[in-house]
Amino acid sequence: MSTSQNPIGIFDSGIGGLTVAHAVSKILPDEQIIYFGDTAHLPYGDKSKDAIKDFTDRVCSYFIGRGCKAMVVACNTASAYGFPHIEKLYGDKIQLLNVIDPMIALLSENYNEANVGVIGTKGTINSRVYARKVKQQSPGTKLSSQATPLLAPMIEEGYYNNYISKTIINSYLDKKSFKNIEALILGCTHYPLIKKEIAEFYQREIQILDSSQITAKALKLLLESKGILSESRVKEDEFFVSDYTSSFEHATKQFFGKEIKLRKKKLNKLP
Amino acid sequence: MSTSQNPIGIFDSGIGGLTVAHAVSKILPDEQIIYFGDTAHLPYGDKSKDAIKDFTDRVCSYFIGRGCKAMVVACNTASAYGFPHIEKLYGDKIQLLNVIDPMIALLSENYNEANVGVIGTKGTINSRVYARKVKQQSPGTKLSSQATPLLAPMIEEGYYNNYISKTIINSYLDKKSFKNIEALILGCTHYPLIKKEIAEFYQREIQILDSSQITAKALKLLLESKGILSESRVKEDEFFVSDYTSSFEHATKQFFGKEIKLRKKKLNKLP
Repeated sequence: MSTSQNPIGIFDSGIGGLTVAHAVSKILPDEQIIYFGDTAHLPYGDKSKDAIKDFTDRVCSYFIGRGCKAMVVACNTASAYGFPHIEKLYGDKIQLLNVIDPMIALLSENYNEANVGVIGTKGTINSRVYARKVKQQSPGTKLSSQATPLLAPMIEEGYYNNYISKTIINSYLDKKSFKNIEALILGCTHYPLIKKEIAEFYQREIQILDSSQITAKALKLLLESKGILSESRVKEDEFFVSDYTSSFEHATKQFFGKEIKLRKKKLNKLP
Repeated sequence: MSTSQNPIGIFDSGIGGLTVAHAVSKILPDEQIIYFGDTAHLPYGDKSKDAIKDFTDRVCSYFIGRGCKAMVVACNTASAYGFPHIEKLYGDKIQLLNVIDPMIALLSENYNEANVGVIGTKGTINSRVYARKVKQQSPGTKLSSQATPLLAPMIEEGYYNNYISKTIINSYLDKKSFKNIEALILGCTHYPLIKKEIAEFYQREIQILDSSQITAKALKLLLESKGILSESRVKEDEFFVSDYTSSFEHATKQFFGKEIKLRKKKLNKLP
């Protein structure tokens, strides 16, 4: 059913996934994006597995209803808990991609003998999704994980490049297990916004692996491989949130590079 | 319909409102409490006014269905946005109390000529609910407001009495407008947990006004005035959350003084 002209659905718990949408729009400027941020339930980091499965399911159904050829689960927590569920249910109806698998593929190619760190929300780290997938697909990689739950709220509040953010970042990264890492995975869509500060902490001696970039590249390869890459844009992007506030709208500038008009669509009422 | 034996409903966006439930259970040990924490939507601080009205409405309907004689809206953001809505709809069916009005009454009695500070989530502070009510009911009080959005996530992560928490607290409170305050209102149910650290910042020279204590006392007066104070407990307390995780359950110890069994009840399915 899907043709190259059909849109790409991008899903996140909030507006952080706009970092992924932004990377996609840079690498694939001819693709139409339909973005859905579940701001009524954000953040997902402390929600239950069942709740996240349910939210992901509803958004995926909505994207299928809108004729999306592909869906990117941009949220790490939803990638951990919701993705296997929708893959089983809808894998034959829509191309599915999450933000974790492309990162694991990159580790397997380039960091199979390396010490690598990963930071993320409590939900993502406690799910052990990175640890499990690394063990299966890149068994030579020695992965150290660290939950960094204050970073996302800190970024949302606009705290970066200041004393508070430096204190919080240093306290999280100054761990024994992170001492010898060659690369650090940013396991949350918010973290690209503090990439520079993290690099400064390490005095630029390690690679910072930004899943928004890596996912956008993987999406391009996926669409190419299926022969459904768009060659010319036919429709404008659309951005939905399940709860609208003007402060979400203002914050889109941080994550997408420019302020975006958000439209409200309740998750409960999705078909 | 309500008799003294009927329960008291206590509502919060999450488990922070257990500080209020704890104060109520200390002051009114014979009352049965039904607690509802809307953990599926927490935190309310960045949700829209309409969403919060809707959530508060559903919980109030549930409490009425359970025969509650009174409902305490323990969440400051819900007190600002949801309370006026349920007061209009259900004010004749159930005794309603929020965590803001008792504080304003106390200001009017004891701080009518004083400089007072208030800290809270972005939702609470941006609602200007304290500023508006002070102007009407305690016009001599000079109120300075400060949104402190990182404090609640910081407390939830168990960061207190350490370097990060000191840095964050100092950075928020070290404001020109807070220089001459005689009292500071803790405008969020989480903040009683860092009362000691806040007092240390001020070297104990100001009064810290804790709304959980003040609300519990106001509830006692309200029930007395209506002649519906319970004189002997007939049923055990019940604690519901709209999304269950074991980490919420563990965290109840922080807020309620002992770990509590939480039961899941979806807000969507409330009658």
